[in-house]
Amino acid sequence: MATKKKAKKKAAKKKVAKKKVTKKKVAKKKTGKKKAAKKKVAKKKPAKKKTAKKKTSKRKAAPKVPPMNAFYAQSGGVTAVINASAAGVIEAARKSNKIGKVYAGRNGIIGALTEDLIDTSKESAATIKGLRYTPSGAFGSCRFKLKSLEENRREYERLIEVFKAHNIGYFFYNGGGDSADTCYKVSQLSKEMGYPIQAIHVPKTVDNDLPITDNCPGFGSVAKYVAVSTREASFDVASMAKTSTKVFIVEVMGRHAGWIAAAGGLASTDDTFIPTVILFPEVEFNQEKFLAKVKENVEKHGYCSVVVSEGVHWPDGRFLAESGLKDAFGHSQLGGAATVISGMIQSELGLKNHWAVADYLQRAARHIASKTDVDMAYAMGKAAVEYAIKGHNSVMPTVDRISNKPFKWKVGMADLSKVANVEKMMPENFITKDGFGITKACRTYMEPLIKGEDYPPYKDGMPKYVRIKGVAVPKKLKGTFEL
Amino acid sequence: MATKKKAKKKAAKKKVAKKKVTKKKVAKKKTGKKKAAKKKVAKKKPAKKKTAKKKTSKRKAAPKVPPMNAFYAQSGGVTAVINASAAGVIEAARKSNKIGKVYAGRNGIIGALTEDLIDTSKESAATIKGLRYTPSGAFGSCRFKLKSLEENRREYERLIEVFKAHNIGYFFYNGGGDSADTCYKVSQLSKEMGYPIQAIHVPKTVDNDLPITDNCPGFGSVAKYVAVSTREASFDVASMAKTSTKVFIVEVMGRHAGWIAAAGGLASTDDTFIPTVILFPEVEFNQEKFLAKVKENVEKHGYCSVVVSEGVHWPDGRFLAESGLKDAFGHSQLGGAATVISGMIQSELGLKNHWAVADYLQRAARHIASKTDVDMAYAMGKAAVEYAIKGHNSVMPTVDRISNKPFKWKVGMADLSKVANVEKMMPENFITKDGFGITKACRTYMEPLIKGEDYPPYKDGMPKYVRIKGVAVPKKLKGTFEL
Repeated sequence: MATKKKAKKKAAKKKVAKKKVTKKKVAKKKTGKKKAAKKKVAKKKPAKKKTAKKKTSKRKAAPKVPPMNAFYAQSGGVTAVINASAAGVIEAARKSNKIGKVYAGRNGIIGALTEDLIDTSKESAATIKGLRYTPSGAFGSCRFKLKSLEENRREYERLIEVFKAHNIGYFFYNGGGDSADTCYKVSQLSKEMGYPIQAIHVPKTVDNDLPITDNCPGFGSVAKYVAVSTREASFDVASMAKTSTKVFIVEVMGRHAGWIAAAGGLASTDDTFIPTVILFPEVEFNQEKFLAKVKENVEKHGYCSVVVSEGVHWPDGRFLAESGLKDAFGHSQLGGAATVISGMIQSELGLKNHWAVADYLQRAARHIASKTDVDMAYAMGKAAVEYAIKGHNSVMPTVDRISNKPFKWKVGMADLSKVANVEKMMPENFITKDGFGITKACRTYMEPLIKGEDYPPYKDGMPKYVRIKGVAVPKKLKGTFEL
Repeated sequence: MATKKKAKKKAAKKKVAKKKVTKKKVAKKKTGKKKAAKKKVAKKKPAKKKTAKKKTSKRKAAPKVPPMNAFYAQSGGVTAVINASAAGVIEAARKSNKIGKVYAGRNGIIGALTEDLIDTSKESAATIKGLRYTPSGAFGSCRFKLKSLEENRREYERLIEVFKAHNIGYFFYNGGGDSADTCYKVSQLSKEMGYPIQAIHVPKTVDNDLPITDNCPGFGSVAKYVAVSTREASFDVASMAKTSTKVFIVEVMGRHAGWIAAAGGLASTDDTFIPTVILFPEVEFNQEKFLAKVKENVEKHGYCSVVVSEGVHWPDGRFLAESGLKDAFGHSQLGGAATVISGMIQSELGLKNHWAVADYLQRAARHIASKTDVDMAYAMGKAAVEYAIKGHNSVMPTVDRISNKPFKWKVGMADLSKVANVEKMMPENFITKDGFGITKACRTYMEPLIKGEDYPPYKDGMPKYVRIKGVAVPKKLKGTFEL
């Protein structure tokens, strides 16, 4: 293993070296001034000497050639902490003289394709700092996946056209699995199209399904929200159970993996037991066993809480949420898994129940974000810039867990080719044998991720979230691009 | 008005005087020792002399006769801060030598009827302090309304039997409109059944529909939750709107009055505009106008947030939530108003949307409670005890607003006969003319109520909510009582 790693590192170094050469080539095509600047980057000391010489030979100082700019974009479903990663990227880039300006894509990669760039240098330090505690994607996100170079060369050519026009040499893409794939494809542009671009993926997804990294920023906060909310609502239903509601159901996100549903299990701890039944997408729904479990809890504890993943499905693969609901006029209705579970508990067990669907509330809940998660999100953004400065391409900063107790972690690095299109599922040993709970192993993994509170500032009772000015970078290209 | 008030005060004083007389009568029937103690309460100074005399004539000090005990119960739907009122009652009672022990009804008034009392003196000071930041009803609540004395004398006789057996002279009832009615009926027991009881109602309801008091503890926190959550989810949908979700819908509580829905309007402020459409139960649902408003917002701002009260109804009175949903097997399903709105926006406007139903999450969300609300809840509990000590009966402490800017309030008092069975609706001038928003008057009223944060302590990422030991008071009566 160790040898393998070393070999990998060696290969990575070679790649970086290659990339630098490619950069040089492109620089040659540019003006003489730029050429000098490029050399300065490539061979630091000699370049300095040259500049010094120029200063002595010419009264007028040589005009400074700006370093290459960076492009940053947010992608896919947003989270409570993706803007913390943005703050990490922008603040680290501002501190470095190796990166010029950071241009953000308005609405993600679409902003790059349509040359709709936001000049983040027009945002105050206070605004960028404020991003750390502002949920959502401040620059706009999008759901747009680039096809392969073979399938849609036109999009890649356009990207390069825009990058060239705005002297962009760094590509920071903040997203989940699909975005890692897009980022990987962009990282290959150097090789395939001869354009010098360093593409670094910044991990983000509430789904927690990226491989290699211990967890994905965004997940810890949604997990905290689900755990806290489940505990609170469970306290509520426990008070009501004698004469009223006996079962509380909350539906949470996670179409393919039960990471978020599992967080509901954190509501119950050694010192605060809560009878909870979790419905995972990993476990085929068995109505009989489920109802028996709920009944048992109500008989034993007086009440029961149910955390149901939106991805729970019948043995035939149909989602519970798509149970063919029709309204009085025969129109199909989008129900949730929670409504189906609720109806079932009412009709089969005759137990009064209440249900909630958290939807966006869970992933936007910055007010109850996990400090660990916020710190990690910021660190990922910062590390992405640091890796770029060091010359890396096609990588993603990762959270590497060092120890559980005390919880320690450090920033690591993953090769994007190993990240793209790989979905990390919950380990089997995270779900109890009966399929309705989380194991100690799951708890050991998950508890540190919800640790710590990181409250935003408030004004008149409301969180003071920031909004960017979003000043557009003047367009340099003629014509538009049809998406 | 001033004269009226004075007259009322006079009347109240008379009532108190009468009650004391009644108390004396009962005391007569008891042992001589108790008689002396009663007199001590009635005529302070002479009684002291007597005790002093006894001390000189007898070596052994006269055994202390304990003051009467108090009964405290939680009623109806619980809130994030009803336990803060419990803490106010218990801590104030512990400080006073006029009140013996506080016995809490396990599951509300049912605990009194079934002689299932919790001895709160067995709970540590830390636990009682912890109630201030613990949501739900720690002693258990119930939905149980006493009929009138004429309709069900049996229940009242039972109450008195239990009160007598446990030397209970104070009745603190913590609830909403129905509970105020029950409390009022109990307060009349002195008169009607010759038992000395002082009944004080402690206001609590997320519905904010009690009259006279400026607001009801519980409301400010649910309002804060709804305002914060709506702001957060609106930031989220704004980021996604370019290529994905354009409308976000959140369903909130409030079957009869739109107080909670109105709080969604606080999400948008002068410095943070959010295009919001609110659907109030006070306004007949007009599908055409509603859809036009949503469409207009999406066209103008790119996205729209909808806050829909569970009580929204069609012109014919049917709730939107009861739109006759049936599943694939023909079983009726309990949908929510949000699912109906969602389906409508999808089918009529073709706009992708997401929906959430907050349900218990909103009223249990102690983690984002309003400090103003917590302070008021505690103050109401404390004041109830102080009023009882001063001899009041059949009253409710109130929040009296003194000024808006700066927000100032004090504890007032309302006669229970004026509170019971009166539902306070939202003033008409709180809803904008188009029926979809809140006015400045509403904002002026509501903003102070969500002000301030009052975070619970955390352990390992989770709020450290307390649970009571719940030690039962030994039963003194034979037989059981069938509810």
